Amino acid sequence: MIFLTRKAEFSSAHYYWNDAWSQAENERVFGRCANKSGHGHNYTLEVTVAGEVDPVSGFVVDLKELKEILEREVVGVYDHRNLNLEVPEFAADTGTVPTTENIAIAIWQRLEGKIPHATLHRVRVYEMADLFADYYGER
Amino acid sequence: MIFLTRKAEFSSAHYYWNDAWSQAENERVFGRCANKSGHGHNYTLEVTVAGEVDPVSGFVVDLKELKEILEREVVGVYDHRNLNLEVPEFAADTGTVPTTENIAIAIWQRLEGKIPHATLHRVRVYEMADLFADYYGER
Amino acid sequence: MIFLTRKAEFSSAHYYWNDAWSQAENERVFGRCANKSGHGHNYTLEVTVAGEVDPVSGFVVDLKELKEILEREVVGVYDHRNLNLEVPEFAADTGTVPTTENIAIAIWQRLEGKIPHATLHRVRVYEMADLFADYYGER
Amino acid sequence: MIFLTRKAEFSSAHYYWNDAWSQAENERVFGRCANKSGHGHNYTLEVTVAGEVDPVSGFVVDLKELKEILEREVVGVYDHRNLNLEVPEFAADTGTVPTTENIAIAIWQRLEGKIPHATLHRVRVYEMADLFADYYGER
Amino acid sequence: MIFLTRKAEFSSAHYYWNDAWSQAENERVFGRCANKSGHGHNYTLEVTVAGEVDPVSGFVVDLKELKEILEREVVGVYDHRNLNLEVPEFAADTGTVPTTENIAIAIWQRLEGKIPHATLHRVRVYEMADLFADYYGER
Amino acid sequence: MIFLTRKAEFSSAHYYWNDAWSQAENERVFGRCANKSGHGHNYTLEVTVAGEVDPVSGFVVDLKELKEILEREVVGVYDHRNLNLEVPEFAADTGTVPTTENIAIAIWQRLEGKIPHATLHRVRVYEMADLFADYYGER
Repeated sequence: MIFLTRKAEFSSAHYYWNDAWSQAENERVFGRCANKSGHGHNYTLEVTVAGEVDPVSGFVVDLKELKEILEREVVGVYDHRNLNLEVPEFAADTGTVPTTENIAIAIWQRLEGKIPHATLHRVRVYEMADLFADYYGER
Repeated sequence: MIFLTRKAEFSSAHYYWNDAWSQAENERVFGRCANKSGHGHNYTLEVTVAGEVDPVSGFVVDLKELKEILEREVVGVYDHRNLNLEVPEFAADTGTVPTTENIAIAIWQRLEGKIPHATLHRVRVYEMADLFADYYGER
Repeated sequence: MIFLTRKAEFSSAHYYWNDAWSQAENERVFGRCANKSGHGHNYTLEVTVAGEVDPVSGFVVDLKELKEILEREVVGVYDHRNLNLEVPEFAADTGTVPTTENIAIAIWQRLEGKIPHATLHRVRVYEMADLFADYYGER
Repeated sequence: MIFLTRKAEFSSAHYYWNDAWSQAENERVFGRCANKSGHGHNYTLEVTVAGEVDPVSGFVVDLKELKEILEREVVGVYDHRNLNLEVPEFAADTGTVPTTENIAIAIWQRLEGKIPHATLHRVRVYEMADLFADYYGER
Repeated sequence: MIFLTRKAEFSSAHYYWNDAWSQAENERVFGRCANKSGHGHNYTLEVTVAGEVDPVSGFVVDLKELKEILEREVVGVYDHRNLNLEVPEFAADTGTVPTTENIAIAIWQRLEGKIPHATLHRVRVYEMADLFADYYGER
Repeated sequence: MIFLTRKAEFSSAHYYWNDAWSQAENERVFGRCANKSGHGHNYTLEVTVAGEVDPVSGFVVDLKELKEILEREVVGVYDHRNLNLEVPEFAADTGTVPTTENIAIAIWQRLEGKIPHATLHRVRVYEMADLFADYYGER
């Protein structure tokens, strides 16, 4: 068993807001992130897959294929987008705030079962260099 | 003469749009940046000042004071904001698109003449790790 | 279960010395670190907490509160200090040398049980970019 | 139990090629890596060892000794070398392609059992900043 | 006048060798780099252009066009190649050794005059994180 | 003319103190740096030399020789030392406080005229990733 990790990046806008709360309550909990005009980040995504190394190719996963999956399932959907306004899993009526934690879970759900010959092991999302979330699925 | 550089960061949303152009023309020139829902970045700012080292303190500039100036003049205004909607120098009626180049120039104009005992030498703005603009004032 | 990691930094002086050993023995084991005039590092601390994501806020832990805890319990005590002379857990009479390993354990002991709604999972301390220690508590 | 990680670097040439396949098949599977003139990378190696902290020295492992082992067993053999032509575990007749995965496994095999007073826990190899493999031995 | 810098990367093999010298002389001058089996690096290229900001677009240069030029003129030619064997300016009969210095000069010559609406200002090439060369053209 | 830059690192303790001032005045000007027990940093040094590329070797300077000069003149003197107590140019009776600015100037004076076949162009010293000083000599 070996673990292979590939990084990708996306630049998105977002804000933190709960419609069930007052403006004051949103600001108390979310601070400067409660500004609905939005702010943004260069997110860094690390996707780790686990599997056996193919004895002929030396690969646990086809890197070109993995890159295409990340592009199609995540980067193409999140990059240069407003996560609250343009990505369905964070729409206002879902009640799911696009925190680093929830972004990691959403990316896991987008990728799970889509990577041939390997198992999704971990999704790590950096919002900034000094803050990141890790999700290993439900376990 | 010595040059001292201090970094700061701000996380902002922005988009590229020219009201005088059609949607198609905006998309042709600005690509994915023309999405008015906005996207965002972790910007890194490097401000370089030039001056003589004070023989007693060993400082070209008081670092605590420099940090406060950067916070008051730039970070406090740009961070967790939408540059197009909330920062006056990039309002739609100015016609100034918040490109990396224009952000560097705007920060220069915000800082020039505000740093005691030293001369503003360079403003560098990174939009991402692989793209940055340098401005040295009009010269 | 999700894991959230926050980084912090502190700049400290330290040296490696065992009072029970001769100067020669200290130098043999600790090399250049045995210089009691001290040297120093920019330490990077990564604190990982584990917990369930709050379905309303989207947070596993209140980031502002976590930052305050790290500041109060660690950074405020270690930063701009001499670890051997000014931090009680590394005082000469404890016999605890402030190696990267022992700093990671000491930070774990400072933080354990202090983080509301989440479990301390890992403390990572970088002494330099090419050397770090991880501690997961007694297990 | 604590985990200590030390980084090292080596700059090597390599290419991906399977003698049992045609040129076309090699290019289909390995893309631009199938060029037998070779290309190269600055590899970053992270070696993690696990053990108890010595209560007197504060070390889980003698850092100077660990550095010498990494130099002798890995860096001295791989650095400024062509992995395919000059490193025995990747010679053409082995059929082992020097992918990031196989390099991590080979380094594990070179280091296992050679580190006094500690257990080899993980070998991580970065081929580039956005791609790395982790190996924890057979388990 | 503003300066815009874009980074790109290429992974290449190379070696240092002067056909006019003996093996011993090559090894004395070039050390471990004189190994003709080759070694390699992840090179980082920074290209800086200078010009006036277009008042309508806010660009000094069209970033998409700049990226295409770097890809066509440099990355597409150097990446996943052996610089000595596959890149004409470093062929053995030229006598030009692919040192970091000479790579920077060669990239300047490849790019000069090819960037519309802006002036090539600087080419920086990193061979590793701790070594880089800057070339500003003949002046 | 080409510019070659080599990085080096040293880990040192220091503090800021002016014997002519009271404790209160030292703390007012130098803040937490006025603690005479010391604190420390991983300093990064970038030394840039300028010269013509040797047409035969492709070098502006012999890298091995440059590394030895940096080791002998700077790293061997500053690394794992207390700059105030163990480095003569920052001794208390000199009145020279080891600020980032003064360290850059001192390193320039240590290196000037010592590098064969090339001219010392710039000394850059990072105290931390977000603060650095550049010195180009007297001009």
